[in-house]
Amino acid sequence: MKSQKILLDHGSGGKASHDLIKNTFFPKFDNPFLLECDDSAVFNMGNSKLAFSTDSYVVDPIFFPGGDIGSLAIHGTVNDLAMRGARPLYLSVGFIIEEGFDLSDLEKILLSMKSAVHEAEVLIVTGDTKVVPKGNADKLFINTAGIGIIEGDIDISGHNAQIGDKVIISGTIGDHGIAVLSCREGLELDFPLSSDSAPLNRLVFEMVEESPNIHVLRDPTRGGLGTSLNEIVAQSDVGIMIVEDDIPVRSEVLGACELLGLDPLYVANEGKLIGIVDPRDADRILDKMKANKYGHEARIIGEVVPDHVGRIFMKTRVGGTRIVDMLTGAQLPRIC
Amino acid sequence: MKSQKILLDHGSGGKASHDLIKNTFFPKFDNPFLLECDDSAVFNMGNSKLAFSTDSYVVDPIFFPGGDIGSLAIHGTVNDLAMRGARPLYLSVGFIIEEGFDLSDLEKILLSMKSAVHEAEVLIVTGDTKVVPKGNADKLFINTAGIGIIEGDIDISGHNAQIGDKVIISGTIGDHGIAVLSCREGLELDFPLSSDSAPLNRLVFEMVEESPNIHVLRDPTRGGLGTSLNEIVAQSDVGIMIVEDDIPVRSEVLGACELLGLDPLYVANEGKLIGIVDPRDADRILDKMKANKYGHEARIIGEVVPDHVGRIFMKTRVGGTRIVDMLTGAQLPRIC
Repeated sequence: MKSQKILLDHGSGGKASHDLIKNTFFPKFDNPFLLECDDSAVFNMGNSKLAFSTDSYVVDPIFFPGGDIGSLAIHGTVNDLAMRGARPLYLSVGFIIEEGFDLSDLEKILLSMKSAVHEAEVLIVTGDTKVVPKGNADKLFINTAGIGIIEGDIDISGHNAQIGDKVIISGTIGDHGIAVLSCREGLELDFPLSSDSAPLNRLVFEMVEESPNIHVLRDPTRGGLGTSLNEIVAQSDVGIMIVEDDIPVRSEVLGACELLGLDPLYVANEGKLIGIVDPRDADRILDKMKANKYGHEARIIGEVVPDHVGRIFMKTRVGGTRIVDMLTGAQLPRIC
Repeated sequence: MKSQKILLDHGSGGKASHDLIKNTFFPKFDNPFLLECDDSAVFNMGNSKLAFSTDSYVVDPIFFPGGDIGSLAIHGTVNDLAMRGARPLYLSVGFIIEEGFDLSDLEKILLSMKSAVHEAEVLIVTGDTKVVPKGNADKLFINTAGIGIIEGDIDISGHNAQIGDKVIISGTIGDHGIAVLSCREGLELDFPLSSDSAPLNRLVFEMVEESPNIHVLRDPTRGGLGTSLNEIVAQSDVGIMIVEDDIPVRSEVLGACELLGLDPLYVANEGKLIGIVDPRDADRILDKMKANKYGHEARIIGEVVPDHVGRIFMKTRVGGTRIVDMLTGAQLPRIC
C-alpha cells in the first residue's frame, strides 16, 4: 500500500470525509444500521424504537461567543437524535483532557453542560475521563453519545425526500462557523456574532406534533447547508432546487465570508435544521417553527425536484442557476 | 478560585480520578443513574432494561503485543456492559485523528476492530471522525459507547456484595499494563508478554446461565484489582479479605513490576473480571469459568467480610495482613 496520510480534509464533513467513510470504514463494519448514513442509527429493542448517535468535539477555541465545547457537545448529540424524530433521553460523556488544563476552565465547561442538559431535558448517565501528558492533546476533547426513543410511526430519514416536498431551513446559516473562526483568528467584526449552538429537540417535537408528513430532518453542521443537502439528494435519489435569495444569512456572516473567501453554504451551523416536508403541510409546519425561539427565522428555501437526481441546483441572486456541490476540502478545521 | 490544574493522576482511575468525579462532575450531573458508579448505567426503556456505557481510549503505543487501540476500544466497552450482566448489542465509535496519521495504520486498526466486533457479536451502528491539525493530538484517540440489554431478573452491581460472598478473579493480573508499558519503554523481557485484552461477554453469559447468584462483576482496568475492589467495598458497605498467595500473577509480570517499582495489584487488566458470588454457587461458577478460554485460570482469591467496612485487607505471602488501599497516583499514564 502506498503511504497515504490522513489530512484535515478527511475531517471536514465534506467529500473527503464521505470518501474515507465509504472506502475505509464501511467495508469493515457494513451493517444496515450504519449504512443508512443518517444522523443516528435507529433500531428496535424490545417494544421500543431507539435512536443512537455519537460525535466527538474538538472545537478550537474551547470558549467562543454563544457557547463552548461543553454546550456544543450536548447540543450536537441531542440534535443528531432529534433529526430522526427521536426524543433524546440519555447521554454518555467522554473527556480527554490535556495535563495542565485549568480546573476552573473545566468547571466552567461542566456548568455550561449542566445548563445544556437541563434545557434539552436529557440526563448524562455515564462517563469517562482520560488525562494525557502535556502536548499529547490540545486542551480538551469531548465525546458524547446519546440514546433517544422514537414514538409511534415516526419515520424521518435522509432517504425519505419526495418529489414536490418543500425544503425549509430553520434560520440563518453560517453563524456558528463564523463566530468560532472570528474568535480563533481574532477578527474584529463590526457587530459581534454569536454561535447558534442550541438544542433543537423541542422544535422538532413541535414540528412532528403539527404534522406526520415531515420526511427528512438534518442539522447542517460540518460542511454546512450545501453538504447536508447533497447528502440528502444522494440518499433519496432526487434533486433539489434552492433559491439563493430565500436563504437567510446575516450580513455579518456574509461580510466575514467575503473577507475570508468562504461560501456561507459550507459554513457550519449548530442550531439549525433542514426540514423536507410534504408541500401540503409546509406552511403549517413553518408557522409552528416560527413560534419557537430556535425557528423564528425559518424559511422555505426550495423544493425537491425530479430532474438532475443527486444534485443541488441553486437559482442565484443574479438570475442564473448553479450547481451546489459537496464541500470538497476542509474549509475550517476544528469547527465543532 | 485558586488556579488548580488537571494532573495525570486525575486520569489514573485511582483516588484522584474518584475525587475529581465526586467533587467536580457529580455536583453538575447528579442523577440516580450516574451516581450508581457502576461500569454502565442501567435504565428501562419501554419493556426493556438497558445498559449504556462509554470509554475513550488513548493508549500509547497504539499497537502493542496482544492488541491495539482499536481492539481495546471494542473490548473495553463490551466488557463494561457485560459487567452489569448485559448482552452488548450496539456500539458507537468516535475517532479523533491527528493530521498526517498513516492511512495504512488506520486500516490495520479498523481490521482489528472488525475482528473484535465479530468475536464479541456486536455491531458498530454509528460513528464520527474528527481530524485535528498535526500536534493537536497524539496519533489517534478512540471513543466507544455501547448499549446492551439485560434479560430477566439479572441484577449485577457493585452495590450487591454480601457478607460471606466469594471473590473470584478470572485469571492472571497485570498482563495488559505490563505489556503496554514494556512496549512503550522498549523493555526487553525474557518472555514476551501479551496484553490480556479480550471480550468477556461470552464468559459472563455462561456464568450467569450457571447461577443467578452473581452479585458483582467488575473488570479491573485502570487502577487494577486493588482499586476495583476498593470501589466495590465502598459501594456495598462491606469489607473484603483477599489472600496474596491465591492471586494469579505471571512471573514475567512480577519480575517487571519489581524492576519498575510497580505493584501488580494496581496494574491495568483488559480481559479479566472480578466476580463476587454466593458461596454456595462459587465452585460451580468457577468450574464454568475454567471451561472458557478467558477464564481458565480463574481462582477464588478471597471473601466478603463484615469487619473493616470499606477496606480491603490482604493476607500476605509472609503471613501478615495489610491494607490494600485505592491507587493514589497515576502509576501508568495512557495505559488504556
